[in-house]
Amino acid sequence: MTATDGWPPSERTRLRRLPARGSYERAAVYAVVDAALSCSVGYVIDGRPFVTPTAHWRDGDRVYWHGSAASRFLQQVVGTEVCLSVHLVDGLVLARSGFDHSMNFRSATLFGRVEAVSDDTKGAALDAFIEKLVPGRTAELRAPTEQELKATTVLAMTIEEASAKVRAHGVSDKPEDLEAPVWAGILAIETRLRELLPDPEVPVGAPPSEALRSLVGRVL
Amino acid sequence: MTATDGWPPSERTRLRRLPARGSYERAAVYAVVDAALSCSVGYVIDGRPFVTPTAHWRDGDRVYWHGSAASRFLQQVVGTEVCLSVHLVDGLVLARSGFDHSMNFRSATLFGRVEAVSDDTKGAALDAFIEKLVPGRTAELRAPTEQELKATTVLAMTIEEASAKVRAHGVSDKPEDLEAPVWAGILAIETRLRELLPDPEVPVGAPPSEALRSLVGRVL
Repeated sequence: MTATDGWPPSERTRLRRLPARGSYERAAVYAVVDAALSCSVGYVIDGRPFVTPTAHWRDGDRVYWHGSAASRFLQQVVGTEVCLSVHLVDGLVLARSGFDHSMNFRSATLFGRVEAVSDDTKGAALDAFIEKLVPGRTAELRAPTEQELKATTVLAMTIEEASAKVRAHGVSDKPEDLEAPVWAGILAIETRLRELLPDPEVPVGAPPSEALRSLVGRVL
Repeated sequence: MTATDGWPPSERTRLRRLPARGSYERAAVYAVVDAALSCSVGYVIDGRPFVTPTAHWRDGDRVYWHGSAASRFLQQVVGTEVCLSVHLVDGLVLARSGFDHSMNFRSATLFGRVEAVSDDTKGAALDAFIEKLVPGRTAELRAPTEQELKATTVLAMTIEEASAKVRAHGVSDKPEDLEAPVWAGILAIETRLRELLPDPEVPVGAPPSEALRSLVGRVL
């Protein structure tokens, strides 16, 4: 990892506001993308903006998402430019003035072009998705049928431009506000994998794997 | 609240995939929008997609967000169409086949047009934002200065079209998979306001308000 292992800031990604919080490094962008289970994908269709929340996964500089092959929407966006946004909220910054209120967060903004993943690599891509969620789980599941693969569209983008932005510190009040008679600090927020709830309808065929059990309590 | 208190499905908002999970009712859309602290706003600039994560707040059918008045970006989008997406992930649905894996989530997709909030209502709008975060807090804070208000751009949209979509149930396996020797169920996920961390740099001028203390432990 060197200072140049990333994407040069572009007109679209250069962070103009508080650039000290930003990075164009692969490591910084990957860390945010991988921490999140879902993202917001922005498309332009007929000149109008569309944003779709979706689960995503990553392999190197390629980011994947998926949906139903019956979705006209997904078919329509193949080949178009896309902006993929990931963000996680880590806290409310409760300052001594309204103006200095803020949030602690991790975010990444990626630009690229939508590609449809070909039939012969779709299965491997979907396995990688399951493995992101629960390492080792694909080995426990039957292989997808041809019909299931046909029913699934997997889309991908190669990151062409990207930036990450993180705020992870305390309140920053103006000197003249420091004596204000008000509580100031962080209301910390966390997103946590809380517990395993076994299928109540049908007896479950096996205990959760060690890898699955070890996810419980994990904070994103 | 009647069955028609909402937005008629449009070409953009009609839920084609699993429409049973969707709603066009105000109550359903408001519930998702209000539960979340942040959203993803999608714009089109020079024909290209941009998605920005931002905190948001709501007053009736108007949704607000804000940023620096120095942001060229925010100035540029006034008057353009916008797609505002909110989503919260509530669980991983770990089915007995890869294909039937899913997520529990709440999402809302809103369409409208970006307006700049005028100087004479900006202060009230920003107060409403603080009140969303911590009820009663604006009464504890000094009023914003004219300079602070000038430095802040508040944007808004009136919801023209909207839909909400929720998945909040267990695994849905195919009958032929029910005997599979694999654990099946939900890995529940929660986003929680975890704890108050007082400013470690400067003595805090007052204890947290009752309203602030009561937020600790709240799940979004």
